[in-house]
Amino acid sequence: MRQKVILDCDPGHDDAINIMLACASPELELMAVTTTYGNVSLERTTYNARVIREMIGHDFPICAGAELPLMRNRLSAESCHGASGLDGPDLPKPVRDVEPMHAVNFIIESVFRYPHQIKILPTGPLTNLALAMRLEPKIIPLIQEVVLMGGSVDVGNWSPAAEYNILCDPHAARVVFESAAPVTMFGLNITHQAIASPARVDAFRKLGTRNGEFAAVLLEFFREHHEQRYGWDGGALHDPMTAAYLIKPELFEFRDMHVAVETQEGSSYGRTNCDYWRVLEAQKRSKVGVKVDADGFFALLTERIARFP
Amino acid sequence: MRQKVILDCDPGHDDAINIMLACASPELELMAVTTTYGNVSLERTTYNARVIREMIGHDFPICAGAELPLMRNRLSAESCHGASGLDGPDLPKPVRDVEPMHAVNFIIESVFRYPHQIKILPTGPLTNLALAMRLEPKIIPLIQEVVLMGGSVDVGNWSPAAEYNILCDPHAARVVFESAAPVTMFGLNITHQAIASPARVDAFRKLGTRNGEFAAVLLEFFREHHEQRYGWDGGALHDPMTAAYLIKPELFEFRDMHVAVETQEGSSYGRTNCDYWRVLEAQKRSKVGVKVDADGFFALLTERIARFP
Amino acid sequence: MRQKVILDCDPGHDDAINIMLACASPELELMAVTTTYGNVSLERTTYNARVIREMIGHDFPICAGAELPLMRNRLSAESCHGASGLDGPDLPKPVRDVEPMHAVNFIIESVFRYPHQIKILPTGPLTNLALAMRLEPKIIPLIQEVVLMGGSVDVGNWSPAAEYNILCDPHAARVVFESAAPVTMFGLNITHQAIASPARVDAFRKLGTRNGEFAAVLLEFFREHHEQRYGWDGGALHDPMTAAYLIKPELFEFRDMHVAVETQEGSSYGRTNCDYWRVLEAQKRSKVGVKVDADGFFALLTERIARFP
Amino acid sequence: MRQKVILDCDPGHDDAINIMLACASPELELMAVTTTYGNVSLERTTYNARVIREMIGHDFPICAGAELPLMRNRLSAESCHGASGLDGPDLPKPVRDVEPMHAVNFIIESVFRYPHQIKILPTGPLTNLALAMRLEPKIIPLIQEVVLMGGSVDVGNWSPAAEYNILCDPHAARVVFESAAPVTMFGLNITHQAIASPARVDAFRKLGTRNGEFAAVLLEFFREHHEQRYGWDGGALHDPMTAAYLIKPELFEFRDMHVAVETQEGSSYGRTNCDYWRVLEAQKRSKVGVKVDADGFFALLTERIARFP
Repeated sequence: MRQKVILDCDPGHDDAINIMLACASPELELMAVTTTYGNVSLERTTYNARVIREMIGHDFPICAGAELPLMRNRLSAESCHGASGLDGPDLPKPVRDVEPMHAVNFIIESVFRYPHQIKILPTGPLTNLALAMRLEPKIIPLIQEVVLMGGSVDVGNWSPAAEYNILCDPHAARVVFESAAPVTMFGLNITHQAIASPARVDAFRKLGTRNGEFAAVLLEFFREHHEQRYGWDGGALHDPMTAAYLIKPELFEFRDMHVAVETQEGSSYGRTNCDYWRVLEAQKRSKVGVKVDADGFFALLTERIARFP
Repeated sequence: MRQKVILDCDPGHDDAINIMLACASPELELMAVTTTYGNVSLERTTYNARVIREMIGHDFPICAGAELPLMRNRLSAESCHGASGLDGPDLPKPVRDVEPMHAVNFIIESVFRYPHQIKILPTGPLTNLALAMRLEPKIIPLIQEVVLMGGSVDVGNWSPAAEYNILCDPHAARVVFESAAPVTMFGLNITHQAIASPARVDAFRKLGTRNGEFAAVLLEFFREHHEQRYGWDGGALHDPMTAAYLIKPELFEFRDMHVAVETQEGSSYGRTNCDYWRVLEAQKRSKVGVKVDADGFFALLTERIARFP
Repeated sequence: MRQKVILDCDPGHDDAINIMLACASPELELMAVTTTYGNVSLERTTYNARVIREMIGHDFPICAGAELPLMRNRLSAESCHGASGLDGPDLPKPVRDVEPMHAVNFIIESVFRYPHQIKILPTGPLTNLALAMRLEPKIIPLIQEVVLMGGSVDVGNWSPAAEYNILCDPHAARVVFESAAPVTMFGLNITHQAIASPARVDAFRKLGTRNGEFAAVLLEFFREHHEQRYGWDGGALHDPMTAAYLIKPELFEFRDMHVAVETQEGSSYGRTNCDYWRVLEAQKRSKVGVKVDADGFFALLTERIARFP
Repeated sequence: MRQKVILDCDPGHDDAINIMLACASPELELMAVTTTYGNVSLERTTYNARVIREMIGHDFPICAGAELPLMRNRLSAESCHGASGLDGPDLPKPVRDVEPMHAVNFIIESVFRYPHQIKILPTGPLTNLALAMRLEPKIIPLIQEVVLMGGSVDVGNWSPAAEYNILCDPHAARVVFESAAPVTMFGLNITHQAIASPARVDAFRKLGTRNGEFAAVLLEFFREHHEQRYGWDGGALHDPMTAAYLIKPELFEFRDMHVAVETQEGSSYGRTNCDYWRVLEAQKRSKVGVKVDADGFFALLTERIARFP
């Protein structure tokens, strides 16, 4: 049986690759892409989700979600993803529109309909999921797993302390990490181990397909920001770890630890305080990715993207 | 034309009086009572709303809402309202059930359907309204007015700094006060001017009606807590100021001031910092009740409750 | 036996009156004036203390203290006290210099020398006293009483939540209020009951003395700020309540309550959360002034200032 | 010319080794050991400093300092250092007493006397130095360098977020890091690279001296806690990096970055948020140790401890 998943995202270059990976993989049944503000505005991320669907010729439903964080002002990451949120490739104009249902209501209804069967994969701010958990707390014990990209065991990327997705809505992140739902976290500490180097990007291009080229161009654009900030020869491929983990979990190593999200404004705002050394008494522990087989991860991506025209 | 109102509440003794006042008043069109956890659990406040509807023989719809605050743990005020949330009178078993729609979705849809025509009267925690504002921020400019009971210009009642409704969900309160929607606030500084003294309670009883007796018994129960904490000879009649203000605004004096809600945990948690002296540069100002004609207020209540059997 | 006092202050118009009151009163033995940054810089407040000593022909020692708050940036109140901190009257150039000892060390040594015999009267930020309590915690049980002007039971004056002295150094205030030393507080809720109206200022002038005129001119300058902000016909005479209380305690009414100082930055920063209704379980309670006999207070001031040339 | 240093510490096993290293090194002139509460109470750390002085036959002055953190309650680390703070070896009873001067006043006076010539090496909570900086802010530009053990670039040891010394007094740490004084930081990210493995401890023992044995026994006791928490075969030798850096800076690699200390209570309390990727606009940057030549570091320690009887 295929694993039911909802991709809750803000495409975004690496979100796009994650959607492609999920759609190309028979292990997964993509129930919907739900969108959120995040890298850019909700309007743009939703448009980008439609573009990607068009690009890869898929038919998953798209539900638009939150426009704003729970409490704070909205950040945006145009310095990293360009003004459109998906700068780089030439993109088709999408035809099919989004569903009329709100992302939050879609999540609630899906979880009630398929209890213990849905894994939710947020790769943007966690606002949609947090709103769903507060609108209908009864869904919380029925969520099979939350597999998210966000946070960091060590240092941040958008502030010294915090990773972008969590910093976008620390309150939402706190709701999710403190909920009774099982959480698997892929933070910067592991995603920074998977750099889309020129050789790895070339592997996409050498597929000789339209979508191989699409992926290559996306990652080439993504490289710039990472080169300037970190001095690396490629972007860190954050989001696709969430789907890759469901397809091939043996690529990753984990360590269970308590994760607390800082919601107080100040220098630690949005930090995921990970109890790596287990200093705290027994509390809910999340499954935190600590090591990835980067070559195996890129090999999986290349193999799956090869399945598109 | 009657003023459309939604009572968003957690009955509750004084909420009950407010519902009675709204139902008895031809100036108002009660679109629905939406319920929230608050004085007691959502299950109980929703049950109590049904009881009150039965008691006064009315037919407004009831939609159940939030079970939990946005971020913090749930408080409860059984010391004040009894285990049922409506201790005191003998109550009928309600027959009619609640609507199948979530309170938050009811608020969103109603505001979209009747833009600029609905006043929302929250007399409990502000979770439902805050969730609605985050699920669909586009409703914010379409809300005609938020008229709420909560907060205080001076001291609190559930902590030295904070009033109970706001302390229940400071984050939700902050969303509402910081929103672009116009807010009128009745805080402890004004509700503590309207004590349901034995003479005022007697006026309800002397109506000689079933519902006059109901109101009298409610207020006699409510007195106990206030006598112990404040040394007063009756309870402060908080919530009914919201409906009374729409019916007879001349009973109240206001002062416009900025209101900031403290969301940091600590001794000020849940405080409404009211800029009484206008120390801050121009910012959004709420209309804050500062003085009530208490005799006129109780006369209005008595006159309206007399309309029930 | 005369009551030993240390005036720890930041003169300042109302500080000046407090120094005059202490010097004119045989009930008190002024051990020293210790100065702190506050209304203006330490350099200016210390100079002003010397000016006042010269003006009233007294010989108390002056020790300069803290230049900066413990944690936050330094505020200044030139809008209220003028650039010099004592704008208004023509002032003599002081001859005698300050003592070579730091105010904090003076406080520590004095308390060790006269255990249980010294009352410290801070009428500026509480930095000196907090530093003394942390440098030598052993003085804390030996302080007879701290009688301070600062804070508020209801609203603030420098922010909606906070009074100026406390807002200048909330951390220092927290150290003092949480210490085991007994604290008597005169906050805005009581000092705003004592307005230096034109008639009361005239009473100083009619003394026909140099120092009566000095006091009158000080208060006339002080009036401006209060007129603009509050619409009053005179300044609130804050600081002199501390010495007046030691001389004639029957002028004041008090209520014991727990006082917590908010040290988190945000809208409540520097607030004194006063447990007026005793909501909290038994904790250390401070003695908080709630009512003053304003006429008696001004009569005392006039009578004592009359003793100067 | 020898480099003037003040060791401001809370001995403590690794503090003891740092004192030994400083005393054995002709490159350094140890002006005094100033003590603070920290691993255990001030009374014990001060006694331990006297014991160490006796043990190694040295004559540096000792000044006792702070008993309490600026704001928070006192932590203690007896689980790591034993009840005495120096459990393990048989220790002599010290004869010589401490100086009558307070550590804070000693720091102030020394810096004024030798401007730009003193390096202060705090290896405990930063309370003494912060109090000195607030009592006399004028010393700040006269301090040559602060070389401290504390904080972490990645994870903490006493909470998921924080290292023990900083967590003991986050407010003091913030004063020091935000001051204009140059700060060099050795945090857990580097001290956890220098494990006192059995082979390295043996090297001390094989010196065949009384003090070689002393050092070996200290480190053997220290091992226990680290074995339990981290699964390592020895303790991390934190504090001696401060003196070693002055003696042989080529052992260390650094990266300049802004360091912000979290002073808000919550899950990040006491964290040093290090701007490793330089996300923030230009601000004061501290010199943060990122890599140590651990073999060279232990070789230096062994060579210097060999100089004692």
